[in-house]
Amino acid sequence: MPELSISQFGVVYNAFSFTFAAMMATFIFLLLSRSNIAPQYRAAITMSALVVAIAGYHYFRIFESWDAAFVLSSVADGGARYVASGSLFNDTYRYIDWLLTVPLLVAELIAVMTLAPGKKGALTFRLALAAALMVILGYPGEIAGDTASRALWGFISTIPFIYIVYELFVGLGPAIQKETGEAKTLLSNIRLLLLGTWGFYPIVYLLPILVGSTVDANTIVAVQIGYCIADVAAKCGYGIMIYAIARAKSRQEGYDLSSRAIAASG
Amino acid sequence: MPELSISQFGVVYNAFSFTFAAMMATFIFLLLSRSNIAPQYRAAITMSALVVAIAGYHYFRIFESWDAAFVLSSVADGGARYVASGSLFNDTYRYIDWLLTVPLLVAELIAVMTLAPGKKGALTFRLALAAALMVILGYPGEIAGDTASRALWGFISTIPFIYIVYELFVGLGPAIQKETGEAKTLLSNIRLLLLGTWGFYPIVYLLPILVGSTVDANTIVAVQIGYCIADVAAKCGYGIMIYAIARAKSRQEGYDLSSRAIAASG
Repeated sequence: MPELSISQFGVVYNAFSFTFAAMMATFIFLLLSRSNIAPQYRAAITMSALVVAIAGYHYFRIFESWDAAFVLSSVADGGARYVASGSLFNDTYRYIDWLLTVPLLVAELIAVMTLAPGKKGALTFRLALAAALMVILGYPGEIAGDTASRALWGFISTIPFIYIVYELFVGLGPAIQKETGEAKTLLSNIRLLLLGTWGFYPIVYLLPILVGSTVDANTIVAVQIGYCIADVAAKCGYGIMIYAIARAKSRQEGYDLSSRAIAASG
Repeated sequence: MPELSISQFGVVYNAFSFTFAAMMATFIFLLLSRSNIAPQYRAAITMSALVVAIAGYHYFRIFESWDAAFVLSSVADGGARYVASGSLFNDTYRYIDWLLTVPLLVAELIAVMTLAPGKKGALTFRLALAAALMVILGYPGEIAGDTASRALWGFISTIPFIYIVYELFVGLGPAIQKETGEAKTLLSNIRLLLLGTWGFYPIVYLLPILVGSTVDANTIVAVQIGYCIADVAAKCGYGIMIYAIARAKSRQEGYDLSSRAIAASG
């Protein structure tokens, strides 16, 4: 790891803490609001809650790992810098997190849609598999010390990503057209959120190639903050939008909050 | 403990973290989904949730113990290796975990089946006792420094394992034949999952005998990763399959999700 200034170390440290807090808060929101949703859409809320719980755990670990990887040290000019402590920063946490959460993110989108039951299972399986492959194929490039390997694996992992985008925008087009009202608008928009946030990861991934170094201090800071922003949008923002879709569909299908409140508890 | 390369240490470290995350996510899933199950099968879901909660706790401890047992150190050739820190890696966590969880795994299978009530209790007791004996008798071999003791205790602990396999495939055969539809298929399959995953542990257990050493670095890495894979399959995979069986039987017996939402709480 390169030396970092106090502010370079601090901005990443605080970004990790912010992201952990956002994941945990979204988890609590989804747990508490799950009963506002008609039973047939609760599986989507359960999966959203799992995503932010898993990501919250990993951000807790990433935070601890970042903190342990550096130690504040006096330098020749009389100032202080964060230097490598001898403990390694474990970037693999992100990939384990994505391996578990990215298939769930596509599965929750399918779960909140109205599709023929037989179609749902097979489509979820194909999309979840493609999502897992995308993560697995990106990993060798992330840990490679050279930018050429990073570019190669990044390119290969784009293939399952393109398949997912194709299924969402072409394959699922007719099903979204059949939805009505607020749910239809939200479903069209969530695909754009997914495309926008997932499209942000490859840009962050490619930063070290654009800069020409995997060990430049500013690049490391930008990569970590970029992944935090992408994760908050793709997990918290996306999860809340899945909730909004499930709530709109529950309302459209006559799932009544006030009668439920009398008949059932929390 | 032997010296480990950075990647040997890291792959085990990340496997422990992954396994903890998988256990925790399965626990949250089972908690949230328990209300989808007819009351008479909820005990099976409760036991599945206990299994992954107990295992999650132990993997948290195993992770911390592994991390504390090694320290990154410069070596003569200018590289860095993980060497023993002086703190011991506590393998006993696994056996405490199995002693608590393995009897629950057989008990949840019985709980999700349809058997005469009188028969259920006695069968659960016999199978849970055999499961506990299997774990207890394997332990002296795990901590033994020599491969001969490992082989001897491994052999003795196979006796209760064979009894469990006999009960599942011969004793429970007629009861599974009486089940219907999806539940019948899933119950036949879960026995194979149990046999396959439980059969994986002895292979991992025997690795040091096949290699002829209990302190070889690659063997230690392979044993730890092997146990992680087996635990994820035998606890998370198995727990989700128990859920699927309970869900299928609830549906077959007319337990209706939409009316449930009115009658029962979230």
